[in-house]
Parts: sequence; C-alpha cells; structure tokens
Amino acid sequence: MDIQYAKRFDGITGSVIRDIFKLLTNPDIISFAGGNPANSALESDVISAFAQQVLAQNGTQILQYGQTEGYAPLRESAAEFYKRVGVTARPEQVLPVTGSTQALDLICKALLDPGDTMLVESPTFLGALQTFNLYQANLVAVDTDEEGVIPELLEEKIKAHNPKLIYLIPTFQNPTGRTLSLERRKRIAKIVEKYNVVVIEDDPYRDLRYAGEPLPAIKAFDTTDRILYCNSFSKIISPGMRVAAIVCTEPTLMRKLVIGKQSTDLHTPALTQAVMDAYLRAGTLEEHIRVISESYGRQMAKMQGMLETFPKSVKYTRPEGGIFLWCELPEDFNATELLTQATQAGVAYIPGTYFYTVKGAHHNTMRLNFSNASLENIEKGMGRLRDLFVAQGLK
Amino acid sequence: MDIQYAKRFDGITGSVIRDIFKLLTNPDIISFAGGNPANSALESDVISAFAQQVLAQNGTQILQYGQTEGYAPLRESAAEFYKRVGVTARPEQVLPVTGSTQALDLICKALLDPGDTMLVESPTFLGALQTFNLYQANLVAVDTDEEGVIPELLEEKIKAHNPKLIYLIPTFQNPTGRTLSLERRKRIAKIVEKYNVVVIEDDPYRDLRYAGEPLPAIKAFDTTDRILYCNSFSKIISPGMRVAAIVCTEPTLMRKLVIGKQSTDLHTPALTQAVMDAYLRAGTLEEHIRVISESYGRQMAKMQGMLETFPKSVKYTRPEGGIFLWCELPEDFNATELLTQATQAGVAYIPGTYFYTVKGAHHNTMRLNFSNASLENIEKGMGRLRDLFVAQGLK
Repeated sequence: MDIQYAKRFDGITGSVIRDIFKLLTNPDIISFAGGNPANSALESDVISAFAQQVLAQNGTQILQYGQTEGYAPLRESAAEFYKRVGVTARPEQVLPVTGSTQALDLICKALLDPGDTMLVESPTFLGALQTFNLYQANLVAVDTDEEGVIPELLEEKIKAHNPKLIYLIPTFQNPTGRTLSLERRKRIAKIVEKYNVVVIEDDPYRDLRYAGEPLPAIKAFDTTDRILYCNSFSKIISPGMRVAAIVCTEPTLMRKLVIGKQSTDLHTPALTQAVMDAYLRAGTLEEHIRVISESYGRQMAKMQGMLETFPKSVKYTRPEGGIFLWCELPEDFNATELLTQATQAGVAYIPGTYFYTVKGAHHNTMRLNFSNASLENIEKGMGRLRDLFVAQGLK
Repeated sequence: MDIQYAKRFDGITGSVIRDIFKLLTNPDIISFAGGNPANSALESDVISAFAQQVLAQNGTQILQYGQTEGYAPLRESAAEFYKRVGVTARPEQVLPVTGSTQALDLICKALLDPGDTMLVESPTFLGALQTFNLYQANLVAVDTDEEGVIPELLEEKIKAHNPKLIYLIPTFQNPTGRTLSLERRKRIAKIVEKYNVVVIEDDPYRDLRYAGEPLPAIKAFDTTDRILYCNSFSKIISPGMRVAAIVCTEPTLMRKLVIGKQSTDLHTPALTQAVMDAYLRAGTLEEHIRVISESYGRQMAKMQGMLETFPKSVKYTRPEGGIFLWCELPEDFNATELLTQATQAGVAYIPGTYFYTVKGAHHNTMRLNFSNASLENIEKGMGRLRDLFVAQGLK
C-alpha cells in the first residue's frame, strides 16, 4: 500500500535551486546559481563573541522555553533598526521568525485557503512560489518593468481577481535586481487602501546598496495596516542563523501569525535571536554593511563588465544593489537546456524559467548571483559562460 | 473591511498553556503549569563552550546557508544516539527540525488534507492538538489506561475511521506520565503492519527515567517503515535551542518532509544543530542526564508525597520518569474553574480538560509539572493547592 500524501503536494517537486546545488559537487564549477553571501562576509569570530556574551549575561532565559512572540530585546532593537526604512513599529508589532521563508509560511497559514488568489511579480523568487504553491494558492502574475511592478496592472489584477495577498520584493528584487521607484511605492500604498488585500513586502536586500539613494519601504506609506514588512538578517549577517522578522501593525493579524507560529515551531531559537540583538546593539553593523557592500559592488561591476563582452543581443539589468543580475537572451536561445552543458564547462546559473508562475516559458532568461564569487572567479566563470553560449550560436 | 482569515483558524484561540503563562507575572506564584526543565539544568557555560568550539572549527559552514536535510554531523551523531532506543537509522534517515513542534507540523503538512482522520491518545498533549487542529484534522480519541493506549481499542478505531495518522507519546506521556508497556509496543507495531496508516511516536521524555528499566521504542518493532520516531533535545539539554529530529525510514515520505521544510524555514539554524552535535560527541550527555534525573526524581517523589496529604478521593499517577503527574479529582469537582482562585492563592496548574479532543469535559482533572520547582516550592505550592481544594469542599 502506498502512503497517500496531502493534496498540497500534487505537482510539487522541491526547490530546483537546492537540487541544482547538489549537482555542483565538483569544486571546479564556478557557481553563480545560489543566493549566498560571500563566505568572507561571515564573521565566525564576531558571532562567537556575541554568543558568549549573551549566554553569559542571559543564559537561563536563552536556554529555557521562550515566548512565541520573540526574544523581547530583539523585538525592541529590530523595531529601532527598521526606522531607517521609514517603518515605525512598536516592539510588540515585530515578530522574529526562523528566516524569511517562515515569514511567508506563517502569513500564508494565517490567510490562505486552497484556491485563494495571490498576486506576485513576474518574475519572482522561486522559493516563495514553492511556499505559496504548498498553500494551494492560485498565483496570478503581474508584469514588471525597469521600475519594478507596474501599479496600473497591479490594480487591474486586484479588481479582476480579488486576491487575498500580494507578494512584492521592492528593493533589488530577486531575481531581477530591480528596485521599485519611490513614486510607485507611494502609488501602491494608495491602491492597497482601496481594497481588502494584504501585502507582503519582502525586503532582505535593501541594505546592500552600491549606488543611488536609499528608499523608504512601501510600509512607510501604509495607512491601513495591511502591509507586512519582512526583513531578514540572512544577507547582511548570516543566513545559517535563520533570523528574520515580520512587522505587522494589525493586531488581529499579528495574533493569527503568533498562533500559527506556536503550532509551527513554538518559537525561534533564542540564542540566534539574542546574537542578532547583540549585533544590532553593538553599533558595528553599519560598518560591516559598508565593508561588504563595497566588496559586493565591485563584484557586481566585474560581472557587468564581463557581460559587456557577451554578444550584443544579451540584455542584463543594472541594479543599484543586491546580489543578483538578470539576463535576457534572444527568444530562441534556451538557457534551461544549456545548464547541463554549462556545469560540464565549469559554470552554473539558475535558468530564469523557474521564476515564473507559468511553467515551460521564458527559457531565454537566467539569474546570476555575484555575491559569492571572487573577482577572479567572476572573470573566469563568465568567460566560460560566454564561450559556451557563443559556441551554441549566440550572436 | 475585516481581513478574512484562513478557515483553518476557525475555532482556534491559541495555546492555553502559553496564555496561562502570561497570567503568571506575579513572581510569588508557584507554577506547576509549564513543561520546563529546571533552570538549574540549563548549562550556559557548557553551551557557550560548545558554541565557541563549533564556530572556531566550522564557522563558515555554520553561518552560510545549510542543507534542508540538516547539519550532516548531527544527522550522524543523532542516528548513533537513537540506537539506545532500539532505533537503527542511517544518517540520511534523520531529519533535524526546529523543535518537536515542527516535527508535528511537517508530518501533518506531508500527509493531512482537511477532514482527514487522526487517532490520538485520550488525554494527550494540548500543543499537539492545536497543531493538528490547524491542519483541520478530524481527531478521534483512543482511551488509555495505566499501561498507555489500549491496543484493542486502537485497532477498532483504525477499522472504524481509516485514519491517515496515529499520534502516540509512549514514554512518560504528556499529560499523564504513563508509559506504554513493552507488550503493547510490540502489539501496536503488529497492528500498524496491517493498515495503511502512519504513526508518530513522540518520545521527548524517555531519557528522564527515575525507576524501572528503559524500554525500546515502538519504532524498534517497525517492519513497514510507517513509524516516525520523533526525539527532542528540549528536555535533556535545552528547549530554547529548539533542536529535535524525525527518524523516517520511508524514503518518499522523507522527501515530502524535506520539501515541506524547504518551504517552512529552509533549514534549522546550523549553530544550534552544531552545538547539539558537539554535545552528543563530547561523551558527557549521559552524566548530565544522570544528574538531572536524580534531581527530577526527588522532585517527583516530593510532589507525590504532598499529594498523599490531599483527601483520599484524589487519584494521581505514579510514573517512572518524565516531568508530569496527572490528577483525577471527584467527578463533581471543577479544577478548570478553580484555576483563577489557585493563582490568587499563589499556585498554578493546567486544567486537564484542555488535553482532551472533546471540549468542556473532564473538568475534574489537572496536570502538574514538577521539573521546574524546587523541593521547597513543591512543598509550599502543593500545600497551597491542598488548602484551597479542601476549602472548596474537596473530601
């Protein structure tokens, strides 16, 4: 007798990114496939010192059961930290979670019944798509351009589909690297006021800015408490620590998120929360962000420089920050099929098709990550990719 | 316009235990309400030393994104650790998770559609009931006696209800403290062979034994790979660290659990996993378990001694380990109603009614925790409870 699995798993095969990683066991492959920070940006000694400090100061509280609502000092320091984005929240409006993925899981748990509609950017983060699919969401894509999601189209789709949720990554978007303009942020906040819809503003990359001026969050213009601001320490401190937070200013929704979390993992480990709190309070995070941004900015410039040596038909984004570039190749060029040959040639990327809600399309796109490759490897790896693509007839 | 929440939240109000905790802000209240280890059992210095050690040895891997399947060294050391229970698993059959609560969440995610039937012991852990309710399970209770769940009744209910899942806490059960006998463990494994049903064997207390001989897990008699063995480090090392694991020997089910976890929190923090791994490898855990068990055994004896001074109508369990005692008072005595007066008198417990699937019954029962109270406080707190109950007419 076969086990009967839940219907939510129908058609779900697992994250392609994580499966691609498993193919990359050959250490000679230069991978632009992940979304990892540079290993050199991960400060074992700093984290170790903070861990010692918090366990010495507050060990019993950290090792005992904690509150589902989060480690109280972190709720306070994170609320303070988010002021830089124009998000003014009281500590009790901040819910620390086990990484941004859990933010999405808990929000879906609170709001989505099978078949409920959700609007997402086209293209958007494939990991988020998998989470939404496991909640059997009816995903409707909204087109984007150089300035991010297009507000007119967004409103049109809200009217047409009456969605429960909208998922946006406004800053240095995954996968495109593009940033929603200030004017559009304001307009989207205005649009949302008119409809009964909740917005997830997923904003993990915003501190990694290498040019231009920081923008306020869409949440900064929220007048009806329907925008959930999600931030993460994964890209600026450590992804392995799994600490992120949801800012929710609507008390009933916050209560649902907390009850969902009670039943999901009771609470986020207190040690990782306390370490993040110590880092925020130490006053050294700005300098750390400045140092890694300087380095990531150079890596981005190097990758763009290499893309300039590709045939002119290759279009790519020119973000002001983040960790990704997005490439569009000629319509008949299939980047999905070429991935196997690319890994054989010693270079990897993510085919862009996986970032779309419609399967089997957009095979002429790909996402490149530059944060986890040295300048030398970017030169070498992008050279391999160019040579392969040219040999395959790219003009 | 009100936000429309998901149907899974209909009738869900949040864990009563965690809400009772919030009432216990007065430090003079002696609480037997939680399920916490003793503060003195939490070794900040030991955990701090392990954290330093693992970050020094393996910092980059710990701080970078990790595998959803878990921190590889922990999968190995945990598999080794479970041999003591008669569970022989390969490392790839062990899935580290963010506390046992996540084990339940992921198993439900993999298997349950709304309305699917699940068998649970009567009474059983209220936190688990909330998780199952959020998956809109149809919960059917199976009666228990001094030796745990009654196999004949279990088989009857399997035949009658065709459940997808069975949830059992076989050792020092929560809330009763009772242990499923060896003979019944074998019989249940035999029964399960005949039906298409998956069993969750939740076993977080088994190492806290103060008398009698350790028993093998039900999983030790599993011939069809349908028993999921769940263990946790919460009660023996630290609940705040949130590290537990699922042993799953059925590869397709393991794959569903992993995909579910990808979309739930990507992976359990690597730092907390690595600390648990270091503890398991250091060879000092047995001695730590011996020390805390000695102390918990004295606390249990003290609480039982105090219960002997209650009127003779009070029945209570006599477990060989764990952290809970279960009391049955005369049928017409309402422990649920009396909780408020009890907290006013400076003592707290969990009304037993919350451990049942049927609401509003069994008001004459309560759960008492002894692991997180000193001998002195057990004497004082139980004295307060006895005096209140006697003043309320208990005979």
